[in-house]
Amino acid sequence: MSVVRFDLLATDGAARRGRLHTAHGAIETPAFMPVGTAATVKAMTPAMLSASGAQIILANTYHLMLRPGAERIARQGGLHRFMAWPGPILTDSGGYQVMSLAERRTLDEDGVTFASHLDGSRHRLTPERATEIQELLDATIAMVLDECTPWPIAEDAAAASMRRSLRWAARSKAAFCERPGYGLFGIVQGSVFPELRAESAAALIATGFDGYAIGGLAVGEGQALMLETTGLTAAALPADRPRYLMGVGKPEDLVGAVLRGVDLFDCVLPTRSGRTAQAWTRFGPLNLRNARHADDPRPLDPACACPVCALHARAYLHHLARAGEILGAMLLTWHNLHYYQALMAALRAAIEQGGLAALAHRLATERATGDLAPWPLEDHPPTGLTPPTD
Amino acid sequence: MSVVRFDLLATDGAARRGRLHTAHGAIETPAFMPVGTAATVKAMTPAMLSASGAQIILANTYHLMLRPGAERIARQGGLHRFMAWPGPILTDSGGYQVMSLAERRTLDEDGVTFASHLDGSRHRLTPERATEIQELLDATIAMVLDECTPWPIAEDAAAASMRRSLRWAARSKAAFCERPGYGLFGIVQGSVFPELRAESAAALIATGFDGYAIGGLAVGEGQALMLETTGLTAAALPADRPRYLMGVGKPEDLVGAVLRGVDLFDCVLPTRSGRTAQAWTRFGPLNLRNARHADDPRPLDPACACPVCALHARAYLHHLARAGEILGAMLLTWHNLHYYQALMAALRAAIEQGGLAALAHRLATERATGDLAPWPLEDHPPTGLTPPTD
Repeated sequence: MSVVRFDLLATDGAARRGRLHTAHGAIETPAFMPVGTAATVKAMTPAMLSASGAQIILANTYHLMLRPGAERIARQGGLHRFMAWPGPILTDSGGYQVMSLAERRTLDEDGVTFASHLDGSRHRLTPERATEIQELLDATIAMVLDECTPWPIAEDAAAASMRRSLRWAARSKAAFCERPGYGLFGIVQGSVFPELRAESAAALIATGFDGYAIGGLAVGEGQALMLETTGLTAAALPADRPRYLMGVGKPEDLVGAVLRGVDLFDCVLPTRSGRTAQAWTRFGPLNLRNARHADDPRPLDPACACPVCALHARAYLHHLARAGEILGAMLLTWHNLHYYQALMAALRAAIEQGGLAALAHRLATERATGDLAPWPLEDHPPTGLTPPTD
Repeated sequence: MSVVRFDLLATDGAARRGRLHTAHGAIETPAFMPVGTAATVKAMTPAMLSASGAQIILANTYHLMLRPGAERIARQGGLHRFMAWPGPILTDSGGYQVMSLAERRTLDEDGVTFASHLDGSRHRLTPERATEIQELLDATIAMVLDECTPWPIAEDAAAASMRRSLRWAARSKAAFCERPGYGLFGIVQGSVFPELRAESAAALIATGFDGYAIGGLAVGEGQALMLETTGLTAAALPADRPRYLMGVGKPEDLVGAVLRGVDLFDCVLPTRSGRTAQAWTRFGPLNLRNARHADDPRPLDPACACPVCALHARAYLHHLARAGEILGAMLLTWHNLHYYQALMAALRAAIEQGGLAALAHRLATERATGDLAPWPLEDHPPTGLTPPTD
């Protein structure tokens, strides 16, 4: 019995237009979740984030358990209140970051022990503790603890890891306290092996989760294999539950995955790029440190509706980047997030109108040609958000 | 003949409540100018800055002439458009920063030659070039090129420097192109020597400027001597022109100088402190890195009306400071600027109501006791500003 409701509003081929109802508001899908690792989407105030069109954000259990600590956030009333983001928050389980610690962690059947990157202190994550931490954080959507396998990996190793992740998923579910409007998502693993993906999906569905994530991708396998594996995994998942492709991706990856039936995404790309002078636009990425922008009076995209494009020339953003100014990180992050959210809104509108394939073709074309005509508008824009004010 | 109009609305002892009309809007005085060195008030969007109550900002000629260059900003339509701050901007002349370069500059009667701190390239500032640069920037209020003497300094050296600054001031005025709503301010020098201050003030008044700055203070002489010199200098200046105390200061310095008849201030303190985890409040400064804030659910000041105090606990600001998050610098800068602007608004209201001495006494008391009753409200709040929206 699911504790978050998902309404499938429209489909267009394999693509889906949905609405996920949670204790902290509804999410129009397909949706992109900005990453707020340490209880802040870096360089954004909550109001800026909301003005960008974000409906839900992601926070990292690994970082928050180490600093400031899950119990400390619970004493402050939970993550929503702590960071002043009243909307939905999805937390990962910490597994992905812990696994990336390599020599600093040891894995056993019960869980994983690791040394903090901050001070070397020892910590342990089990499916039960990962679930407890996410409940202390008051996560709207929690994720099961799993192992994200590296690339490349042999099929037998991928199978063994996937089956342990399945056992951990069942333990995570058993530990999860069901509350209306809060949910727990399972994570399909199995690397790029279709049989393993099918086995993982079937077992998770049998256990029963509020949504299903596709994990273990975007780890080096390349876009073609990522999208192929995403498509076959999505096809094995129930139509009435949201599907979340973890850690993806570039704008063209999002389009490809939406075409294959994915509903939710997260990625550090728009925020991290914003802090390294990179802007994402409809005609590809721009490096604002490049001298060719020094005297350019144009905004990043003259057709972009974001506050940065409304006010600032590329010449100014170039100056801020060269001078290492914090405002440069703020403005490029803001634009990038707005661009990602505008892309998702356009994809939602296209699905509603049965025009996703045409939009996907057009997006690829305008990236190549610089065609700047406006995108389709949504019939059902996200509700409950603060309107853009600055 | 003055080109910016100054209305003296009320007085309370030596303190003045005024309104300075410029080409980019009116400034209610006494006013505090946040420092936007490199065409950005660090870690603030223009909207955040406006929401804090800022009416006018300061930008640094030295930094902007080196990067991105005054001619480049002129090609972008001037500093207001470049940084998207439509309100008044005061620029310094570059003299203060150049003088602080010590061995990297050589001074002669005609001007000063210096090596850039960015790349060592050679540059020259004369009164004429400093004026031209400020006009290229489209500064609402420009400053004459002068020499800010160090502390301590012998009286004969202070006299010689002050007299050269007078000659430079006359050349700056001759070079300045008068336009309605734009102004040029002279700068009184003379270190802490009353006769030199009187000589400097009288000579500048004879030349005639749109306003008069008090320079060469807050360089190590201490608050008592700073305020004493400020008071005697202000008393020597015409009542119908604004008076600007350069580079000052802490909240208690502002109160002391307003009591002595100063109308305008600038200081990096609220912005620089915000980037080093220091919050300014009515009960003194707080270092948010301190462990005592880790579990404190209170805002910086429960009676503060700023968006940071409305949304965030000290525990969260502590977490951001410890994690080195950009948002920490943003939020503390925002609060600090709001606090400075709220202080100035309270001083303006008190002058209107003839209660400045009582407010000054109360501010000193509440800093000592933590009394948190609200401050007086202005009869004439600043106009033309965007209301606080986030």
